[in-house]
Amino acid sequence: MKITIKKDILLKSLLSVSKAISTKNLIPALAGVKFDLTKEGLTLTASDNDITIQTTIINSDNAMNIEEEGSIIIPGWNLIEYIKLVKDETIDIEVFDERKVIIRTNKGELMINGINNKEYPAINIKTQDNPIIIDSKEFKTLINQTSFATSLDESRPQLTGINFKIVGNELECNATDSYRLARKIITLNSTYAESYNTIIKGKNIQEFVKILDDDDIEMSIFTNKVIFKTGNLLFQTSVINGAYPSTANLIPKEFKLKVTVDKDEFLSVLARVNVIAQEKEKNLVSLEIKDNELEMKSSNLDIGGNNKEVMDIEKDTKENIDISFSSKYMMEALKTFTGDKITLNFVEEYSPIIIKDEKEDNLVQLVLPIRTY
Amino acid sequence: MKITIKKDILLKSLLSVSKAISTKNLIPALAGVKFDLTKEGLTLTASDNDITIQTTIINSDNAMNIEEEGSIIIPGWNLIEYIKLVKDETIDIEVFDERKVIIRTNKGELMINGINNKEYPAINIKTQDNPIIIDSKEFKTLINQTSFATSLDESRPQLTGINFKIVGNELECNATDSYRLARKIITLNSTYAESYNTIIKGKNIQEFVKILDDDDIEMSIFTNKVIFKTGNLLFQTSVINGAYPSTANLIPKEFKLKVTVDKDEFLSVLARVNVIAQEKEKNLVSLEIKDNELEMKSSNLDIGGNNKEVMDIEKDTKENIDISFSSKYMMEALKTFTGDKITLNFVEEYSPIIIKDEKEDNLVQLVLPIRTY
Repeated sequence: MKITIKKDILLKSLLSVSKAISTKNLIPALAGVKFDLTKEGLTLTASDNDITIQTTIINSDNAMNIEEEGSIIIPGWNLIEYIKLVKDETIDIEVFDERKVIIRTNKGELMINGINNKEYPAINIKTQDNPIIIDSKEFKTLINQTSFATSLDESRPQLTGINFKIVGNELECNATDSYRLARKIITLNSTYAESYNTIIKGKNIQEFVKILDDDDIEMSIFTNKVIFKTGNLLFQTSVINGAYPSTANLIPKEFKLKVTVDKDEFLSVLARVNVIAQEKEKNLVSLEIKDNELEMKSSNLDIGGNNKEVMDIEKDTKENIDISFSSKYMMEALKTFTGDKITLNFVEEYSPIIIKDEKEDNLVQLVLPIRTY
Repeated sequence: MKITIKKDILLKSLLSVSKAISTKNLIPALAGVKFDLTKEGLTLTASDNDITIQTTIINSDNAMNIEEEGSIIIPGWNLIEYIKLVKDETIDIEVFDERKVIIRTNKGELMINGINNKEYPAINIKTQDNPIIIDSKEFKTLINQTSFATSLDESRPQLTGINFKIVGNELECNATDSYRLARKIITLNSTYAESYNTIIKGKNIQEFVKILDDDDIEMSIFTNKVIFKTGNLLFQTSVINGAYPSTANLIPKEFKLKVTVDKDEFLSVLARVNVIAQEKEKNLVSLEIKDNELEMKSSNLDIGGNNKEVMDIEKDTKENIDISFSSKYMMEALKTFTGDKITLNFVEEYSPIIIKDEKEDNLVQLVLPIRTY
């Protein structure tokens, strides 16, 4: 393998695949990035067995000059750190003696032992013929509005994932850690004959969102994996086996009280009340709606402190309520909304609190109350 | 105690003293900030027994409205976090039942248990009548150019400090961890009859530099402590007992070779060579001067890599040299210079390397070579 390549283009591609470089070192080849150079271009692959990222830099005079095709695995982190520090516009990469890699700049060279490409696990990133097409920006928003609600507790693996359901032209995502639920529905541009229901680990999908450009996403859903294709980038993740808990009936249909608040003001109140609450389990705070006032309280016997804030609200009925919940979960739920006003929907003291923006009907956040006795 | 005070002014002062709030919790009072309110103003004190910071907000209509003088200790971190989140322009602080503290905003209140001010250790921050006056900006530079070379190893406590020597109108600072030395001399505006020689922990003085404003510094040096006064801020630190190792003869007087390099280019070369070197002890790299070329090399058998860079230089003699050192130490030393060109001064392979900027004669950086056999 021998190539002269634009440094900035190579670095961008290396950084894209870097999230998948294995840090566990069980298989030495997976701590590297696989370079495959053909006359079509340079393909970079990194994988930690759970996620695989592959990107191709298309051969063009502007990007590269290929002297000899070939394949090699180059240790990932050293390489990326070095390329970041190079000031030259182009660099040469040459493989000799089968696995010695020389990276040449104008006045310097790094020689490093590569690994034979045959030692790389067989990876088959074949997309479907009829993938689901999703707008990149809409997808980013979808993930940011749901992934925070996934669980970090591996004892219930399904809850560490986001549940993707596709029926017709609708994509519905649910995420829950059993204390709160985030649900978002987006309408796709096409209608799909086949329905899908799969679970993708929240952490994996967050990595994908970080390297997303503006190109549309093509999502190929298989039994044991999902492949996202966007531009020249392929992102493959394993799926979580098992059935996702049914969330359909979690959201109450009727409410006895709907309260409209200014989102930023409510967030500000919650943040201050949280100062005292945060040292306790689940950041317990209480909320009391009385007439046209909302009162938030927290207390902490350990430090002998308590905290009270009031704010003005709008109500749809004369009902009042007194309810307790986690200020942390409430703040995280509120932050997913883009509008200025949100509504808090209550049934009664021990029923889920539903948070919505009337203008953004496809997003629902649910926070369970906490029993205080 | 009862006061209405501008939130921004209080917060700035709280943040200034916050670096001294004890996190060890051995003495509960030291985890708090002591408030002393008199008709002159509000004095805030925090101390961890090693450093003490005190600042006074002078009473003025613009800053505060005093309703009742008094003293109280308020738990530090909760208070600061809360005040940061307050959106109101002013807040009320009131102490009742001797140690209950209420902090009131327009629509909220935080109640928190304070501690009786009698439980605070006696702290006497009395400055000298004739302190050393140092320009604030010059002092910041002085500390940034030396403190990085102090040791983190507590087994030789003197080396964790910066040695301050004042004779006449000269302040000389030395810092060394026994592998490198940083020396800076500044000329003071006045000449002092008394000479001083003291050691201040590098970490402590770095904390002071962080909260420095533009006001001149008044430095009062006592046997067991040093007090810095600047504006309304007092910063007291204990000193490190014992004699500082003699550094006077460490710097060679005569050199056989002086090499002038472009500082940024040399730093860039070092950074790239360091990628391979950094996984080895002390980031060992070798430098060879041959004719008008400088060659830097590093190698790492573990990952089977080696690295080579060349750059052009200017020399004052025909001598050549081949020498090894820590790229990390060399980079840290280089970064303290403000100019574009620096000189590397060599005696021979196992003598200290002296780094200087010909235009900045009062700063000397020394890096010891490493024997490679």
